[in-house]
Amino acid sequence: MTTGVRRRMGVEERRQQLIGVALELFSNRSPDEVSIDEIAAAAGISRPLVYHYFPGKLSLYEAALRRAAQDLAERFEEPQEGPLGARLLRVMGRYFDFVDEHGPGFSALMRGGPAVPAGGACSMSTASATNALIDSVRQAAYVQILAHLRVAAPSARLELVVRSWISLAESTALIWLDGRRIPRSELQLQLVHDFAALAAVSAAYDEEMAGLLRHILADEPVDGPFAALITRLAALAPSPGVPAAAG
Amino acid sequence: MTTGVRRRMGVEERRQQLIGVALELFSNRSPDEVSIDEIAAAAGISRPLVYHYFPGKLSLYEAALRRAAQDLAERFEEPQEGPLGARLLRVMGRYFDFVDEHGPGFSALMRGGPAVPAGGACSMSTASATNALIDSVRQAAYVQILAHLRVAAPSARLELVVRSWISLAESTALIWLDGRRIPRSELQLQLVHDFAALAAVSAAYDEEMAGLLRHILADEPVDGPFAALITRLAALAPSPGVPAAAG
Repeated sequence: MTTGVRRRMGVEERRQQLIGVALELFSNRSPDEVSIDEIAAAAGISRPLVYHYFPGKLSLYEAALRRAAQDLAERFEEPQEGPLGARLLRVMGRYFDFVDEHGPGFSALMRGGPAVPAGGACSMSTASATNALIDSVRQAAYVQILAHLRVAAPSARLELVVRSWISLAESTALIWLDGRRIPRSELQLQLVHDFAALAAVSAAYDEEMAGLLRHILADEPVDGPFAALITRLAALAPSPGVPAAAG
Repeated sequence: MTTGVRRRMGVEERRQQLIGVALELFSNRSPDEVSIDEIAAAAGISRPLVYHYFPGKLSLYEAALRRAAQDLAERFEEPQEGPLGARLLRVMGRYFDFVDEHGPGFSALMRGGPAVPAGGACSMSTASATNALIDSVRQAAYVQILAHLRVAAPSARLELVVRSWISLAESTALIWLDGRRIPRSELQLQLVHDFAALAAVSAAYDEEMAGLLRHILADEPVDGPFAALITRLAALAPSPGVPAAAG
């Protein structure tokens, strides 16, 4: 990010540049480990000039978080065209791109870790603001998915399926970041399948969910991710008429 | 909890009583809203006597959290007898008992809310200690489930299934607490099904998981929660040979 070019930037352009530089640094290390000097150096400006744009590290950190939250929320936006499974798979690809880019920062933030840089007054309000940002991303994802399902007034069960799946995507990403022991492409597809599976579990006992799921599956290609899953799940079921072995 | 009986308690007995009283109060309201005076009144002792046992509200709050964490972890303990689905269903019953008893406190804590009472020095170390407690409960649940699966050295995929399911149980409980719009008995069963569904999704693409799942299903009674689910899921699958409708 360091550049030798010293052309003059406008105020807003400089602010945006600083936010970008800070976000990259905060993405890879704890806020406590990133100094204003380092941000200044990476942006190719002096330390006093950083303070000209932001009162301190906390405000720069909060601005970086806001940008990250907006970026992540936008990754759930997807044209409402084609089969749902393929749309969701593209969204998961962009979601894991984000997680990949911001790994340590994403992990610390979602685990309620060092969301607030130390030093200065204790700011529980910053912790609350951070939680509000995380919630805003979850809400944006929720609204997007409902729009794709073409449901305006979700039942409590549909809301549970969608919201709990969003949380499953978060925890899957966090577990993946801890060692990256499973290829992310597999997890992206797995999460699409998980969505279908959670919906199917709910549908197995709720007629409204069953109707919605049938509607989704009717639009799925026979070689799409949803259809492949159901075929494989059915293959796991015990053959009818063959009693299960005693435990 | 207030009692008119004024018999003398031993030091440890009194400490445990105070922790119990505090936990009940912190379970239903934010730590900021609970005063030492109120804790003293509920315990039937004077305010100075509370300070004789605990230096302040923060230390009492932390002790209450530790007890709650230990209590929650113990609810995952279950004899390793009988079909796995029924065992998991009993665990989920106790889990939701806990969530029911400690609703607002559980919700605030898991959402990274007011984990630290305001006032006094800011204690990010308390926030870290709180996160460590939450992690210890998750880890205890994870170890318990692996023991039930009789797996000593879990693969990365099995670890993902179990850990992400534990997080799904948390988010399902949190969503349930927000309005209680779905009967909790339904959600307890649904989470058992979700476990099977997540395992089945993983098994559909991983031979080791498939082997484990077949082993579990072989021990399941035909009228158990797992078998019922697979039958219902299979019924949702499109009939073979009938191509899906065009989107």
